[in-house]
Amino acid sequence: MIKIIVDCFGGDHCPQAPVDGALAALAKNPDLHVILTGDEAILRQTLEGKAYDASRLEIVDAPEVIGCDEKPTDVVRLKRNSSMMKGIIMLRDRDDIAAMVSTGSTGALVTGTLVRLGRIPGIIRPAFCPILPTMDGGIVGICDSGANVEVTSAHLRQFAIMASLYMENVYGVPKPRVALLNVGKEAEKGDDIRRETYQLLQETSSVNFVGNMESRDLLSGNYQVVVADGFSGNVLVKTTEGTALELLGKLKKEIYSRTLYKLGALLMKKMFAGMKEFMNYQNYGGSVLLGTSKVVVKGHGSSKAVAVEKCIEQAYKMEVSGLSAKIETEIAKYEHYED
Amino acid sequence: MIKIIVDCFGGDHCPQAPVDGALAALAKNPDLHVILTGDEAILRQTLEGKAYDASRLEIVDAPEVIGCDEKPTDVVRLKRNSSMMKGIIMLRDRDDIAAMVSTGSTGALVTGTLVRLGRIPGIIRPAFCPILPTMDGGIVGICDSGANVEVTSAHLRQFAIMASLYMENVYGVPKPRVALLNVGKEAEKGDDIRRETYQLLQETSSVNFVGNMESRDLLSGNYQVVVADGFSGNVLVKTTEGTALELLGKLKKEIYSRTLYKLGALLMKKMFAGMKEFMNYQNYGGSVLLGTSKVVVKGHGSSKAVAVEKCIEQAYKMEVSGLSAKIETEIAKYEHYED
Repeated sequence: MIKIIVDCFGGDHCPQAPVDGALAALAKNPDLHVILTGDEAILRQTLEGKAYDASRLEIVDAPEVIGCDEKPTDVVRLKRNSSMMKGIIMLRDRDDIAAMVSTGSTGALVTGTLVRLGRIPGIIRPAFCPILPTMDGGIVGICDSGANVEVTSAHLRQFAIMASLYMENVYGVPKPRVALLNVGKEAEKGDDIRRETYQLLQETSSVNFVGNMESRDLLSGNYQVVVADGFSGNVLVKTTEGTALELLGKLKKEIYSRTLYKLGALLMKKMFAGMKEFMNYQNYGGSVLLGTSKVVVKGHGSSKAVAVEKCIEQAYKMEVSGLSAKIETEIAKYEHYED
Repeated sequence: MIKIIVDCFGGDHCPQAPVDGALAALAKNPDLHVILTGDEAILRQTLEGKAYDASRLEIVDAPEVIGCDEKPTDVVRLKRNSSMMKGIIMLRDRDDIAAMVSTGSTGALVTGTLVRLGRIPGIIRPAFCPILPTMDGGIVGICDSGANVEVTSAHLRQFAIMASLYMENVYGVPKPRVALLNVGKEAEKGDDIRRETYQLLQETSSVNFVGNMESRDLLSGNYQVVVADGFSGNVLVKTTEGTALELLGKLKKEIYSRTLYKLGALLMKKMFAGMKEFMNYQNYGGSVLLGTSKVVVKGHGSSKAVAVEKCIEQAYKMEVSGLSAKIETEIAKYEHYED
């Protein structure tokens, strides 16, 4: 039995989306056990009348609410009885629990796991690794995308190793092609950190490093892992999502502006639906936090039930794949520098 | 008469595109005089049989060729007789010349103008400011997008002031809304540089600072100037262009996959053509280099004649608007720190 905590009180559609997502995952995976954290009374009410295997569902009361404007450090210190912090502490303390899924505050989750949960031995900093679909039907993982706005080349090398193992073991991508996000392809491009990292990755036999990548090539399918600092990685991922959404929105607006276009779009209905599904990030699961001592998956704040379900499946697959042990073994081959 | 140098030997379609672009601009602006730099024999050959006002066109022989892999510093030092370097030196030395347009190497252009041309008094670092179309029919300028991969908050404040004046004086945007590119909206987000810049911009009455912007909102139309370091600004611009191109490409491929879709697309032909034009960055001119002592416009390496023509028009407008003097006046209101 794989036990996974679902933080039910973060995100725009809570607790409905986390609860429904958990029930859907539960129905599909007979080997799954979920632990819902949050206000117990509300959770019981949300579950009322729904069909599920109660022997594989647990509720842990954690009624404290995290405000939008609360500082992550304050949340970690003062809100130990919130759905997120209680989840992290339980994940740390209970050997029978494998993973946690949350759609709550990114900052609180990063700080909370760093302070309360801990890292895989050898890992300097955990990092996010969201997945985007590429135009050839493949996928690409971007690591980091926001956990560390400031990094060193040693961090970036670890991100490359972790993300490679993740793509290989959880998504079955053999020998993922790893690129370093930079302002140009040439080895001497970028700042000192980029140049150092380029050298370091060339000497890292654990990853299939293929050089620098300019951001316009992200969706080309030429790369399966892109290594970045959390600031520019965040810009990379959010710009891609934003541009896709804005363009789809404009397309829709244009179509509705003339009857002729509406007619044309009717013939292409299936195609447009396919494009929309293709670009819907809710289909690609959450942004896993690589390098924490136990599996943590961060879902988008706007996640609906289906997205939460995908996050739970992702956490499940990560646990089953034994990713953490593999990361520990591989990282141990290289010197690491604590900061 | 406004005299503008056109570097004819950089970019993918040279010398054809720069020459044709120059002739088109010449035909439209009776007050324009162009100076083509490059291999004179080839330029004369390219001009053969074409109709133009020869009294407003000058050719300056600069036959040295800049290789793809040459270091910018080597180009500046050793290739004084290349089309780009000769152009920069002439721009510096001849009072009658107002501006220069180039589609050549970005690195060589940045280093060349820094070393040989100089800056507007008070400006610490010149910065690129390309323009992108927003979904509401407006435009947004991103400054910097690649000239400075490492910056301080003092640099970023100057970028905000320069880009505001540029949008106001060259594009007629009144009181442009200025945002700082960051990983979240809250004032405390990002690294120390971002937090310092946020404070600094709040105290800068020369700009209409409205706060942090997450990259997914770039095309929303809510902002007319986005301030960024050259690394993440580069990622922002190239990801937007790349995602738009990839999506259009996918759409096209999907359409061609079924006769029914082709039929539908036929009804929407005008709409798709409009979308394509809307997203064609060649329509939005080049990436101007703000802060150099004379006007410099960098066109995309893949620029065709129409894009070069837009760059020349942009340079012309910048000169006529008296932008440099306005930047000097505004910058003088604030302390600046040389580095």
